Amino acid sequence: MRYNGLIDKYREYLPVSDSTEIITLCEGNTPLIKADNLARKLELDCEIYLKYEGSNPTGSFKDRGMTMAVTKAKEEGSHAIICASTGNTSAAAAAYGAKAGLKTYVLIPDGYIALGKLSQAMMYGARVIAINGNFDNALDAVREISKNYPITLVNSVNPYRIEGQKTGAFEIVEALGDAPDYHFIPVGNAGNITAYWKGYKEFFNLGKSKQLPKMMGIQAEGSAAIVKGHKIDAPQTIATAIRIGNPASWKQAEAARDESKGTIDMVSDEKIIEAYNLLASTEGVLAEPASCAPVAGLIKLKDTIKPKSKIVCILTGNGLKDPDCAIKYAKSPVEKTTSDIKDIVKLMGL
Amino acid sequence: MRYNGLIDKYREYLPVSDSTEIITLCEGNTPLIKADNLARKLELDCEIYLKYEGSNPTGSFKDRGMTMAVTKAKEEGSHAIICASTGNTSAAAAAYGAKAGLKTYVLIPDGYIALGKLSQAMMYGARVIAINGNFDNALDAVREISKNYPITLVNSVNPYRIEGQKTGAFEIVEALGDAPDYHFIPVGNAGNITAYWKGYKEFFNLGKSKQLPKMMGIQAEGSAAIVKGHKIDAPQTIATAIRIGNPASWKQAEAARDESKGTIDMVSDEKIIEAYNLLASTEGVLAEPASCAPVAGLIKLKDTIKPKSKIVCILTGNGLKDPDCAIKYAKSPVEKTTSDIKDIVKLMGL
Repeated sequence: MRYNGLIDKYREYLPVSDSTEIITLCEGNTPLIKADNLARKLELDCEIYLKYEGSNPTGSFKDRGMTMAVTKAKEEGSHAIICASTGNTSAAAAAYGAKAGLKTYVLIPDGYIALGKLSQAMMYGARVIAINGNFDNALDAVREISKNYPITLVNSVNPYRIEGQKTGAFEIVEALGDAPDYHFIPVGNAGNITAYWKGYKEFFNLGKSKQLPKMMGIQAEGSAAIVKGHKIDAPQTIATAIRIGNPASWKQAEAARDESKGTIDMVSDEKIIEAYNLLASTEGVLAEPASCAPVAGLIKLKDTIKPKSKIVCILTGNGLKDPDCAIKYAKSPVEKTTSDIKDIVKLMGL
Repeated sequence: MRYNGLIDKYREYLPVSDSTEIITLCEGNTPLIKADNLARKLELDCEIYLKYEGSNPTGSFKDRGMTMAVTKAKEEGSHAIICASTGNTSAAAAAYGAKAGLKTYVLIPDGYIALGKLSQAMMYGARVIAINGNFDNALDAVREISKNYPITLVNSVNPYRIEGQKTGAFEIVEALGDAPDYHFIPVGNAGNITAYWKGYKEFFNLGKSKQLPKMMGIQAEGSAAIVKGHKIDAPQTIATAIRIGNPASWKQAEAARDESKGTIDMVSDEKIIEAYNLLASTEGVLAEPASCAPVAGLIKLKDTIKPKSKIVCILTGNGLKDPDCAIKYAKSPVEKTTSDIKDIVKLMGL
C-alpha cells in the first residue's frame, strides 16, 4: 500500500472528515535513526534516536503542520494562503499552496537579502513581497489581511498546524513500541514542543504507550526567552530557525515542561556548532543548526540522564537548507597534491 | 516497528547474511507522490507518480547503493573507503563511512571549486583530496589505490551498489501493487536504470508483480552518449548529476531498454529547466535538475503513452542540493512595497 501522507495515516486523530480532500506531499513517515556512535562518544549507557525531519518534502518538520493547514484552508473555501516568514515556513506554505492550487503570498521584511532561504518559496511559485518594515510589521500585515480577505493565515497561529505536527509523536511511539524516556527538541516559537506533548498525551490516553516522556526543550542562548523569563528584543543565534524572542506558544511550552517533569534549557552557538559537527562526523547525519540544539542540550544535561534510558532528539530541518554553514564550519579543508599515485598515497598516510 | 533501512527490510533479496552488521542511515522508504496536477497539465489520462529520492538521508538515491557498499566493505575487513566524485556519490560515501567508523577519501580534480557540492562530504568528515589532473585521472588513481591497499572503492564499479539501488523497484511494486507501465529515469552513468530493471525483473520472477514496465531512460542532450551511439569527450549539461560522457553501465542500460521494449532518449537543458519549474510550481516538488530530465522526457514522449497508464518518474536528488539553480531559475523576483496595508493589498491585486 502506498504511503500517502500523515493525514491519510492518522485520519482518525485529526480534524478531517471522510469527504475532506487531502493536500499532501507524502510528508511524515520520517526515519528514526539509532545513534550508537553518539551514545558511545557521550559515554551514555542509553539508546539515542534521531528523528530526521529533514527528509520531509520541503526539508523540515513544518510540512507536518502545513499539510493540515492547507487541507483545511482548501476545505473552507479559501482562495489563497499567506504567511510572514523568511525560512522553513515559507517553503512549506509555498509547496503545499502549489499542490493545492492556491495562491501563496509570503511577506518578508525588506533588506532581507538571503535569497537562499527564500529560493524554495520562489521556485514553488509563491509571490514574495518585501515590505518596508521589520518582521513584526510583516506579521501584523498578514494578520490584518487574513481578517479582511478570503486568504488563510498559515503562520503558527493557525491552529491546524499543531494538529499536524503532533503526528511526529505518534510515529515515535509506533517505532519504539512506547514513548521514549526523554524527548529533546529545539524551542523557537515553541509550537513543536507543544505539538509533540499533545501527541504523546493523546496516544498515552488511548493506551498506545505505557509512559510519557520528559519534554526537554532547548533554546539558543541568544534567544532564550523562556529560560530567561522575559522577551528578547533582538534575538541572536546562528540557529536561525529558532531565532525568536517572543515565542507564540510560550505558555504551552511551559505546560509541557511542567506536566512532563522535564526542563527548558539553553545552549550557546558554540555548543550548537560542536553538536552540528559531531552529528555529521560520528553519525553521518547533517541537520540544520537549530536541529543540533537538542543534541547540544543532551550533551549539557547528560549527567542527569538515567542509565538505560531511551532518548529521542528531534532534528527539525535538513542540513542542506544551510549550505553556507556547512562550508563555514566543515573542519578539514581540501588538500592538494599531484596526480602521481605515490604523492597521493603519501598524503593519505598509507 | 522501527524502519531500519533497506537492507533490513529486503535482507532476503540482498547479498548479506544473518551475521552481517548493517551500516544504515534508514535510507529508502521514500515517498511515491501522486502527481495529478502534472497529469492534468500534460493532458495525460494517466496516473503519474514521482519517486522522491531526495528524501534519502544525504539527499539522493546514492544512499541506496552506499548502504550496501559500505556494509560489505566493513564486513570484508576494509579500513577505509575511497571514491572519485564531486557530487552525490561523495556525500553518500562520506556519510556511510562516518556511520561505519571507516575513513573516507574523496578524490577530485583540482580546479574544482564549487564547495557547495562538496560541503556535505567535508561535514561528514571525509578527507577531500584535489589532484592536479582531470576526473579520469582521479578515477584511475582511486582504482589503483584500492587495488593495492585495504581500501574499498565505492564508485559505481562497486558491484554492491546496484544491489542496494534495485530496492527502489521493490518499493514501487509494493506501493502500487504491481509494476508501473512506464518507468522514466535519468541516465548518466546508467547504474540506476540497470539497478531498477534488475529489481523489477527479480520481483516479477518471484510473482510479486504481474508485469514489467517499459524502461524509459532519459539523457541530457549535451551528454547523450547512449542516444548518439558514441562517447562524448566534453559532456555539457546543467544537470551535473548526469553529466557523463562514457557511462559505466552503457551495455546494461541498452539491455534494459531492449528487454523492456522501452527507449533511451534525450532532452535539452532548456526542457530540463522547464520541467524543473513545472514540478515545483504545479506539484510543490523541488528536485535537482538531473531529476527533472525524466519529467522532460515524459513531456517529450507523451503522445506515445497509452491512456490509463501508470507512470513512475524517478526524481533522483533533492532540489536543495543545488540552491544556485533555484535562485537562478525561480521565475518571480521579490516584489517591494511599503508596510502600509493599503499598498500591500493593492500589490497583491485584492
